[in-house]
Parts: sequence; C-alpha cells; structure tokens
Amino acid sequence: MWAQKNITLPPFTRGFHLITHHITGVLPEIANFRVGLLHVFIQHTSASLALNENADPSVRQDLETHFNVIAPENAPYYIHTYEGPDDMPAHIKAILIGPSLSIPITNGRLALGTWQGIYLCEHRNRGGGRRVVVTVQGE
Amino acid sequence: MWAQKNITLPPFTRGFHLITHHITGVLPEIANFRVGLLHVFIQHTSASLALNENADPSVRQDLETHFNVIAPENAPYYIHTYEGPDDMPAHIKAILIGPSLSIPITNGRLALGTWQGIYLCEHRNRGGGRRVVVTVQGE
Amino acid sequence: MWAQKNITLPPFTRGFHLITHHITGVLPEIANFRVGLLHVFIQHTSASLALNENADPSVRQDLETHFNVIAPENAPYYIHTYEGPDDMPAHIKAILIGPSLSIPITNGRLALGTWQGIYLCEHRNRGGGRRVVVTVQGE
Repeated sequence: MWAQKNITLPPFTRGFHLITHHITGVLPEIANFRVGLLHVFIQHTSASLALNENADPSVRQDLETHFNVIAPENAPYYIHTYEGPDDMPAHIKAILIGPSLSIPITNGRLALGTWQGIYLCEHRNRGGGRRVVVTVQGE
Repeated sequence: MWAQKNITLPPFTRGFHLITHHITGVLPEIANFRVGLLHVFIQHTSASLALNENADPSVRQDLETHFNVIAPENAPYYIHTYEGPDDMPAHIKAILIGPSLSIPITNGRLALGTWQGIYLCEHRNRGGGRRVVVTVQGE
Repeated sequence: MWAQKNITLPPFTRGFHLITHHITGVLPEIANFRVGLLHVFIQHTSASLALNENADPSVRQDLETHFNVIAPENAPYYIHTYEGPDDMPAHIKAILIGPSLSIPITNGRLALGTWQGIYLCEHRNRGGGRRVVVTVQGE
C-alpha cells in the first residue's frame, strides 16, 4: 500500500521550526497501516528536515545560533556570493542536516520517541513556502 | 513483506560504538529477502545512528574528539543549559548525524561495504539504554 | 515491485560532484512506477551522497572549501593518522553527510526539486571508483 501527497508549507522565518502537525495531518491513511514507513522530502537545497526536541523552544534557538557558527555568512573564501550572504551557508546547512526523514509506522501511528518532533530547518532569510513530498508505504 | 521489532540497546558510554551485531540479530527474517531495505530508527534526540569504519577503534575515538570540537560544551551563547553541559551539544550532534539508517538488502544479507559498520553515537554522558525501531521490508 | 542494481562510479577527484545522470540511468524501471522511492547507497566510509544545487559549480567548490574547515586535515588530536592526512577528515565528512539518499518517485519520475541534483562527495584524494547500490520500490 502506497500513498503520496505534495504540500507547500507556510513560509517560516529563518531558524528551526516544529512542523510535526503540518506533516501528520497530510496523510490520515497512516492510521490504516499496521507497519510501514513515512517518508518526508523537501524539494529545496537551502532548507532541510530534521527530528529533534519537541518541547523547549530554547533548543531550536540554540540550534540556529550554533549552525550559524558551523556555517557562517561571509566566509572570506566563499565564491558563491551573488545570491546573498545567507545563500552559501544555507547550502552547507542543508547538506549537513539533509533533505528527508524516514519514520517508522507502528499500529497506525508514527513511532516517534516521546521528545521527537519534525523540524523544518529554514536556512534562508526569506525562503518562502517550501514544497514537501510526503510518501507513506506499508501494510 | 514487512517485519518490525522494537529493541532497547544496552547503555553505552558517551562516544561512537559499533552495534552492527546488536542490529543484525534482531530480525533474522532478513535472510528471506531477495531484495529489500533495512530501516533502523532511534527514538531519541541526543543520540544518533551512523555507518562508518568497523575496524580500527581509533576512528571512533577521533570522531568523539572532533565532534566535541564541532559542537562544544558551554558555548557562551547557549540558552538551553538547565539539562547539563552535555545536553545542547548532544542535540546538535544528533541533528548533524541523524536518527535513522536505510541499508539495502541483497540475497538475504545487508549490502554493507567491507568496512561499514553500524554505529550508535551516544552524545550524553549517561544516556541509558536507547530505544531503536528496526523495520525490514522487501520481497 | 522492487528492482536493485550495483554500479561502480568512475573515479572522481576529491570534492563535490554532480552524478544525477549516473544514477537515473541505472534503473529505467523507474518509469513504470506511479509512486515509489529510489534509494541510493554508497558502500564506503570515506565518501558520501548528498542532494544539493545542480546549477552553479561555485556551490560545489565552496562546499569542498568549507567542509575542509569543518573537518580539517592534521588536527593535532587525531590518533587515526596512518592512512594519510585525508583519511580521518574523510570519515568525519562521511558521517556528517551520510551514506544514502531516499528520493520519492511520482508518475515515473524522480520528484526532485528544480535545483536538486545528486552529489557524490569524494572525501579522499584518490578514492577510486566508488560502489553504489541503487534500489527502487513502489507500485
């Protein structure tokens, strides 16, 4: 059994954002799967998807701060600069974090840990609405 | 064909640990799949899963040393500090490395490269036993 | 429906390389899938796979430059040094970027974003031809 849907997320500010409910609402068919996998894929190269802490927003704030240290703007050696100072760091962060998630399904529900939420990691200052492909498979 | 099992790994010290045998023993059904995928998922936000060198333990020691440079404790700008100095770096490392692996199955065996082993990356000082969901699918 | 093929990529120089056409040509069966997933897996621990910008090569050049900052050669604390100065950084980069990609299939085509291309990230100076397992599943 397969199902797939394309969605566009609302625009988010630069940073790490909880979007669990945006994703779980997309395919209510998940409830029909005894076992399976949910695949979430972002069709962009300057934003990414992650799983992390769903409770204290200070975690998401520190992630934004520290990823700006790992992949800073205006490094003197960047040559890809014409799309703005936030563009090349966005590509680096997107490669570090990755464009997709695969989450197990057990008895009709995502088998997330207690503290795991789905993050949209928006690496551009004005990324706009991001397109995501959500695919579910199982039995 | 699908199979799924939940396991709890024994507690590991902070660092990078080979757990290939912990995982491959969980679903002996793998032997019945001509082609498929094994999915391994950790239900935590301060530990992660990776594939890397399965031979010389010095690789795993250097990984721990260098990830402590990439995501240091006590960065002066962290605001999420009340869970201890190892907590925020653990979230950063978990996002960098990721919570899941997908490994192809060929003729009843994991199609790992000669030097590839499965790592539990334990980012907390006392992470305890980590819960992992192992899912296999194929034909 | 499943299909799987093993390929060996031509040797690439150290750096980030677009290999979309190397991968999409491997399994023409993709055209028969209404919905599915393509899984691409590299059987090595010092090279990795990523999705990122498929247009301006300056992005790929900056990625190589900056990943050499994130995971430098000759860090004074490395103990895994006997395979050459490019080896331990290669393991670190491979863990940061990851060994596999899962890309949705929609109506017989990969559902990549307009600017997304598949990268081979070659982290060794002389990595040779890398072995990749390409698996497709769907209906």
